Amino acid sequence: MKYTIGIDVGGTNIKAGLVFKNRVIKKINIPTHADTNPEECINQIKTAIKYFVRMSSAIGIGIAGIIDSRNGIVRYSPNLKGWHNIKLVSILKNEFKKPVSILNDVNAILLSEWIYGAGKGYKNIFLFTLGTGVGGASICEGRMLFGANGFAGEFGHTVINFNGPECVCGNFGCLERYVGSKYIVELAMRKIKRRKSSLKDYKAFTPKIIAHEANKGDAVAKEVFEEIGKYIGVGVSNIINLFDPEIVIISGGISNAGKILFEPIRKTVKKLILGPEYRNVKIVPAKLSDNAGILGSAYFASKRQCQ
Amino acid sequence: MKYTIGIDVGGTNIKAGLVFKNRVIKKINIPTHADTNPEECINQIKTAIKYFVRMSSAIGIGIAGIIDSRNGIVRYSPNLKGWHNIKLVSILKNEFKKPVSILNDVNAILLSEWIYGAGKGYKNIFLFTLGTGVGGASICEGRMLFGANGFAGEFGHTVINFNGPECVCGNFGCLERYVGSKYIVELAMRKIKRRKSSLKDYKAFTPKIIAHEANKGDAVAKEVFEEIGKYIGVGVSNIINLFDPEIVIISGGISNAGKILFEPIRKTVKKLILGPEYRNVKIVPAKLSDNAGILGSAYFASKRQCQ
Repeated sequence: MKYTIGIDVGGTNIKAGLVFKNRVIKKINIPTHADTNPEECINQIKTAIKYFVRMSSAIGIGIAGIIDSRNGIVRYSPNLKGWHNIKLVSILKNEFKKPVSILNDVNAILLSEWIYGAGKGYKNIFLFTLGTGVGGASICEGRMLFGANGFAGEFGHTVINFNGPECVCGNFGCLERYVGSKYIVELAMRKIKRRKSSLKDYKAFTPKIIAHEANKGDAVAKEVFEEIGKYIGVGVSNIINLFDPEIVIISGGISNAGKILFEPIRKTVKKLILGPEYRNVKIVPAKLSDNAGILGSAYFASKRQCQ
Repeated sequence: MKYTIGIDVGGTNIKAGLVFKNRVIKKINIPTHADTNPEECINQIKTAIKYFVRMSSAIGIGIAGIIDSRNGIVRYSPNLKGWHNIKLVSILKNEFKKPVSILNDVNAILLSEWIYGAGKGYKNIFLFTLGTGVGGASICEGRMLFGANGFAGEFGHTVINFNGPECVCGNFGCLERYVGSKYIVELAMRKIKRRKSSLKDYKAFTPKIIAHEANKGDAVAKEVFEEIGKYIGVGVSNIINLFDPEIVIISGGISNAGKILFEPIRKTVKKLILGPEYRNVKIVPAKLSDNAGILGSAYFASKRQCQ
């Protein structure tokens, strides 16, 4: 049997799994130690690999940031302290004597959704993740788009209002500045100040809680989703106008919020894209859960698109 | 010798040329009759083809709009009255018994810039045209992006300010609404009202005249280019964040305005893109002149990417 290791290196945890086809056979979770230094963090990645390495034929790793898959180099990772031009593939190949591949974490998620999930059978896909950050990735005419430097798909930092509020990246009016988790919560906080809302029963709340209350009928929570749905709709319309995908997949924390999220997005998109009557573009939630990153990294490694 | 016909169908004129490699050997220009009906306009295209058809081995046609190159169908062309789902390729193949290919006009321009012009040797290119409208097209990892419906690259109608002014397309704050020719002129008109400017010597002026006066030192004209350079810079930054190209090529009317146009664009882009230190993206004017559309269409036909 041909097992592959899939690893999802996050800012907090490293999730690693032994993968056979679309199944994660075994899985572990260890801390990333992202705020120490690259050596320490690479040691954690090695520890994760050691759990499964004897049974595996290849290792695939997904990491946030600018990943040069072709040359096996992590150019920069915003979540991992001190990571600049780390030759991760050659380090791990020397240690384990097996093929190693790396790719951007959102590309890994898209890959798994394409092969096993919501994007199955499509050739033109855009996927984005809603969470603390807003990431993106695309399949164009059957091929994953990496870009010249492995930097394609930075959807969260596309500007939707150049007169908008300042973003962590230094720009103004980035999509992420409107729909990153923190800003969704801030929007709800502002709205409940002078109004009745079941959100007031919580000491603190997350976008998931807002979604939960919106689905239970809370008017303010619903309004929050109406508003962020419009912002997301503007961003998605720009994507559709530029890439002309058949399907847009939304992944991450609140993507399973249902129609309170999808209806305002679809409504906005229908209004904003050029020639909606000539397209049949679907906007759907991702199908795979937490394992998407592991499955996608493992698939990438198994195909040895880069070693 | 292998000659190909390249045709550029515009809203006013049909430009047709007999092409050998990167040279337009002969060229004609006839009216499109775009405001009549598809039959009349197709007759004009046939007339243009007849000039050169005996000497040619294939025919390539570039048209604005949603062009389904794979199936040879013009889905919709905003400049040509009544054009909906016109099977142009089969109509012309029946008439001339030669291979016929159609593609979007901006894709044709990009193709010629890629093969013969400013994009030579690059694998990741975004090109956009500045004129009445603002069109775009991209080469991703060595392949032209058409999208699911032949509708990719609608750069002019990406929203850069969702609170912005209304655009002809019905949206608000599209890039084209800020930097389409008409709006550049309007911006200058507003600025000269209360100020000294050599632009006041003209009864009417175009973006080219504004560029000319800016290059001669007129402060108001310079300011116009500063401002539109910023808007274009926001749009281009979105493109770079999404596609990660090596080079962005600006084509069309004012793309040869020089540093009064390029400096504010480059400055804005450097400020707005993620990780400029990890990229080496060039922003340059197109190299080919009026013949770009003819050359690109002919090249497309000669490669028979679609017939």
